[in-house]
Amino acid sequence: MTSDENKRIIETSFHVRYAETDAMAVVHHANYLIYFEEGRSQYMRDIGSDYAHIEASGFQLPVTETGIRYVGSLRYGQLATVRTWLEENRSRRVTFAYEVMNNESDKVLVSGFTRHVWTDTKGRVTRMPEQWKKLFESNFPA
Amino acid sequence: MTSDENKRIIETSFHVRYAETDAMAVVHHANYLIYFEEGRSQYMRDIGSDYAHIEASGFQLPVTETGIRYVGSLRYGQLATVRTWLEENRSRRVTFAYEVMNNESDKVLVSGFTRHVWTDTKGRVTRMPEQWKKLFESNFPA
Amino acid sequence: MTSDENKRIIETSFHVRYAETDAMAVVHHANYLIYFEEGRSQYMRDIGSDYAHIEASGFQLPVTETGIRYVGSLRYGQLATVRTWLEENRSRRVTFAYEVMNNESDKVLVSGFTRHVWTDTKGRVTRMPEQWKKLFESNFPA
Amino acid sequence: MTSDENKRIIETSFHVRYAETDAMAVVHHANYLIYFEEGRSQYMRDIGSDYAHIEASGFQLPVTETGIRYVGSLRYGQLATVRTWLEENRSRRVTFAYEVMNNESDKVLVSGFTRHVWTDTKGRVTRMPEQWKKLFESNFPA
Repeated sequence: MTSDENKRIIETSFHVRYAETDAMAVVHHANYLIYFEEGRSQYMRDIGSDYAHIEASGFQLPVTETGIRYVGSLRYGQLATVRTWLEENRSRRVTFAYEVMNNESDKVLVSGFTRHVWTDTKGRVTRMPEQWKKLFESNFPA
Repeated sequence: MTSDENKRIIETSFHVRYAETDAMAVVHHANYLIYFEEGRSQYMRDIGSDYAHIEASGFQLPVTETGIRYVGSLRYGQLATVRTWLEENRSRRVTFAYEVMNNESDKVLVSGFTRHVWTDTKGRVTRMPEQWKKLFESNFPA
Repeated sequence: MTSDENKRIIETSFHVRYAETDAMAVVHHANYLIYFEEGRSQYMRDIGSDYAHIEASGFQLPVTETGIRYVGSLRYGQLATVRTWLEENRSRRVTFAYEVMNNESDKVLVSGFTRHVWTDTKGRVTRMPEQWKKLFESNFPA
Repeated sequence: MTSDENKRIIETSFHVRYAETDAMAVVHHANYLIYFEEGRSQYMRDIGSDYAHIEASGFQLPVTETGIRYVGSLRYGQLATVRTWLEENRSRRVTFAYEVMNNESDKVLVSGFTRHVWTDTKGRVTRMPEQWKKLFESNFPA
């Protein structure tokens, strides 16, 4: 999974929280899904499709699949950076990809993706609402 | 805070999860609120007032206050035991108290309380529903 | 990913915690990695290779890769069951596979895997210690 | 608990994460201890006593007591602000106080404190190291 240079990439940074570390003194592997979520939230805020607004308008984007590769780790006190981009944008599903780095080098420590379907609030799969279709497409050139 | 011998005390046990530890190699202090919640859930299941049923019938018991004292710690691999009892039972609020131990001694490692109000699903404070009033009172002799 | 009938499968069950749910009222997708970890911990306890002992003897099994598929969800109050088995057992790496169900049907709601490498406490990749090699092999017939 | 105007107050802000919400659609009550921790971390970074450095030099500040009052709640999409100050600064213990607000009003939603002891890495209570004694005192006028 590599970032396509035509795609918009959003970076967001935050400090590793002590609560996110585990007895190995590094960020527990499950927390990278939360870091990805934070990257995705920032991506959507930045392109003008705040996920809170999506839910408020009666739609949801539940996760249907994830994959993560871990080649390095993060420690308390480090500044984590998440790079997020749209990997796939279809009428009923969307895939985001992520890379996580720290502030001390540009080495990718953890990478992965999350795949989502568009549903209504009852969980029924639906087409992507027009409102966000345009926003997403403008950030995902065909 | 000591347990009153007239009160019903419920014990529940579970293994410390690796994800619950932090870089000090012990359970992160915030997780004891989750252990308390697990103790409270088991208490309610045991007296026949499963919190899932309370919510399904249109009521909630949000937390309004907590206090915790930490004198010891738990590590991955240990079996945590939570002792839970009703400390206070009023028409609009309820207080649970907790003690957490491990399986290697009977020393209390962490103790605390959570105070709750009865609300409807819109968060408006309400009287305790009759249905649970009886159950709670039978476990909290005046 | 399907379970091989020759392999030992370990089941462990626990109640969904309220803290594990999110605003969609179902278990947040990141928590399944913690459920997998609980399944893996129980697997290792059951075959006699408690992960706490592995760490105490100077070895670690950090996660290098995970993949998860979500086809259903779990709610507060349900009893989650995790089925865990060894999918791959090599000299330097090991892969566990998982299926998560609830207590109301035998439908698999979430499935996935975690891949691990054997390292020493400094994070250097090492061969699987003889002590656990025998235990793991006895549960993973060639 | 009110903020003393002579004391230095540090504010830090971050978006509520979806994973931090629960089935009531608000931030789960345990996560405020993590918000407090983030406030405390920022406080220490700002006064020049990064907690990562404290641990690296052989000291720890484990939590011995906490108390929290909840009068309001936070939702996904809101910007949380944590105000942190030193409430007490003794040779062997330190108390931080906190207030949490959102970006939509200046109403305090959640407030609380965490009390800590200075220990060495083996958990033995010790005096506050000179190095941080000066930094802490300069932010806590007698």
